[in-house]
Amino acid sequence: MNSDRPTDLSRRGLLAGSATALAAASLGGRALAQAPAAAPPRPALPPYVAWKDAEHVIVHTGTTIETKRSAFGTSIITPAERLYIRNNLPAPDVSIVANRDAWVLSVEGVRQPRMLTVADLRTMGLETVAAVLQCSGNGRGYFASKPSGTKWQVGAAGCVIWSGVPVRNVVAALGGVDGAARFMTGTGGETLPAGVDPKSVMVERSVPLKAMEDALLAWEMNGEPVPHAHGGPLRLVVPGYSGVNNIKYVKRLAFTADESDAAIQRTGYRISPPGQKHQPTEPSVWEMELKSWINGPAPETGPVKAGWVQVHGVAMGATRNLRRVDVSIDGGQTWREARFVGPDLGRFAWRQFVLPVRLEPGQYLLASRAQDTQFNWQAESTPDNSGGYLNSGWRAHAIPLVVV
Amino acid sequence: MNSDRPTDLSRRGLLAGSATALAAASLGGRALAQAPAAAPPRPALPPYVAWKDAEHVIVHTGTTIETKRSAFGTSIITPAERLYIRNNLPAPDVSIVANRDAWVLSVEGVRQPRMLTVADLRTMGLETVAAVLQCSGNGRGYFASKPSGTKWQVGAAGCVIWSGVPVRNVVAALGGVDGAARFMTGTGGETLPAGVDPKSVMVERSVPLKAMEDALLAWEMNGEPVPHAHGGPLRLVVPGYSGVNNIKYVKRLAFTADESDAAIQRTGYRISPPGQKHQPTEPSVWEMELKSWINGPAPETGPVKAGWVQVHGVAMGATRNLRRVDVSIDGGQTWREARFVGPDLGRFAWRQFVLPVRLEPGQYLLASRAQDTQFNWQAESTPDNSGGYLNSGWRAHAIPLVVV
Repeated sequence: MNSDRPTDLSRRGLLAGSATALAAASLGGRALAQAPAAAPPRPALPPYVAWKDAEHVIVHTGTTIETKRSAFGTSIITPAERLYIRNNLPAPDVSIVANRDAWVLSVEGVRQPRMLTVADLRTMGLETVAAVLQCSGNGRGYFASKPSGTKWQVGAAGCVIWSGVPVRNVVAALGGVDGAARFMTGTGGETLPAGVDPKSVMVERSVPLKAMEDALLAWEMNGEPVPHAHGGPLRLVVPGYSGVNNIKYVKRLAFTADESDAAIQRTGYRISPPGQKHQPTEPSVWEMELKSWINGPAPETGPVKAGWVQVHGVAMGATRNLRRVDVSIDGGQTWREARFVGPDLGRFAWRQFVLPVRLEPGQYLLASRAQDTQFNWQAESTPDNSGGYLNSGWRAHAIPLVVV
Repeated sequence: MNSDRPTDLSRRGLLAGSATALAAASLGGRALAQAPAAAPPRPALPPYVAWKDAEHVIVHTGTTIETKRSAFGTSIITPAERLYIRNNLPAPDVSIVANRDAWVLSVEGVRQPRMLTVADLRTMGLETVAAVLQCSGNGRGYFASKPSGTKWQVGAAGCVIWSGVPVRNVVAALGGVDGAARFMTGTGGETLPAGVDPKSVMVERSVPLKAMEDALLAWEMNGEPVPHAHGGPLRLVVPGYSGVNNIKYVKRLAFTADESDAAIQRTGYRISPPGQKHQPTEPSVWEMELKSWINGPAPETGPVKAGWVQVHGVAMGATRNLRRVDVSIDGGQTWREARFVGPDLGRFAWRQFVLPVRLEPGQYLLASRAQDTQFNWQAESTPDNSGGYLNSGWRAHAIPLVVV
């Protein structure tokens, strides 16, 4: 694809690196000419994701890259150029997407186990689902206990549209699950480093069998073949389940009696007390939590001018539809019901919300809290856990706003 | 934005120019190794759209570029890299997007006419709408009478998510429409060529006042600022109305007693009898038609192997929700009800549909016809008109399929 830019100042015509343009492009209020001081320099985008919008993501490391809060926009769907990256292992060589239809998936734990290519899978059904993809560590930066691990803010998350074949279609075509299975287990196609025990590094995750009902083997994301960096040629999508369970370049799909004994399942991604090592008996990081946060005005875009401000953000029910979202400008002392904006893309997606407020000069603390259709409210505070997972507490996600 | 691709063979990892990969990536059936003969060479992408996916669009000219049928995918939303281009005038200089918030819109025909910047508009409200953007000439290539003009197939269309401020908010803030108005008129910010009568070339279109209710002044498309090539910094979006009415780089929004006297309104884009010049008394090309077509398997991807085939496409109610879509494999002799796939993005968007069929070797003629919630059926055939506009007839849109 031709990405030369002889006259266009950046891929989409934004002035690359212009803090003013960036600030102006993201505010719900009136932008000022002076943007805040530049953040300390970060690593550059590594080659396998060089096509992403460098100015709209934060590169923690080559395998941990999050969307800037101010880059989320209000279109519900997160474009691939801004979507976060979190890899547990380096991505396999890009040659795996040279012939996408030839990629092989081994399906096991069914009555008629088979090796199926993506070309085979395309004949077996078609489904499209909008779903939040979120790293279980999103929000870790906001835990008061400061657990170790990447200090994600809000940007290890996005909402994308996946298209592929439902897992249930594939299972039915192969005679159904073989009796004793209680889990759906997916194995990623990463190249494992030599000289280490495969179990200690392989990306293999198990989720409860019920997750099979909504799961998808996706070859397409947001209208294009799944980018290599996001798991192409084939991703196991488990809507409502945290990112690690959505296996990239999935090469094996098995229906198993037990959870995988790979370390990433057995002693990784568990909810453990602060300071404690993970135990295989503890809850695994599976379904995501009811959660919301404010995207605009974002602190990084600086103070806004007094007057009307469109306070906006996103809210997710994880696996349930949303009933309402409230917004506070005083850190949770008082709340006003916000309005949903745009179409409802289903229970696995997130929704945009907005609360227009007329603000006088001063300092504010913006917060949001979501309610699902079962009348559950977003947690005020997520209990600390040693892995810093699943932080959804509205209080910890409050952000300051300066109005001048 | 960094679009270097040192190891990634193309922006998203597809093997650039690989006909096999392209064929494999788009079939609903089993791809064969041998793709059809290459199409005759076409112009390259001009600089202002150099960032688009050259392998997934057809460049008729530098201002008329359509999405390949096989490139539509099944995610409902059309990514900007594949979205069609149709300009009546060359785009203004890309510098207009250097400071997007400073772009000025003159609002007239309201009680308090104002010049508003995009920064002002951002404070006045927020709405997000998914809508089909379609050139009124889409499908012109399928009229039997072969009218003059670009021979668009199905790809002068896409479904995108716009975000911005509702026009009705802006109007209310400016005291409401000034009494006698019957039309909403938008003027594009193109630079007019010297030495010609401005009225003969300017892009200024009027739509009935009622269109104001759903219209949007959009600064964002698909989660990013509206690309310069698609009308950034600001586009007037009139959901349900054909492309030309969605004014790019809109600089003036006026509520007028009469239609614009610009040539593009007065004697352009009218429904006229075959061979006749347009008259200002004839119907203007405004609301789109109930329409659907098959995207896969696409003829350009060659024969498919016998067995299960996922026949899929898109259907639009233009301004109404859809009730059903039927698919025929025998050119309309017999029909089967297809299934909608993925979320409903609202009445202005299109929906994916799929019909799985088990096909023996042979030749088939695939067609689709949509029904809206008011029980209207897509037209079997659109009457010829001299401009070749609004072709929605299902018979003309049927495509061949060879199964081997």
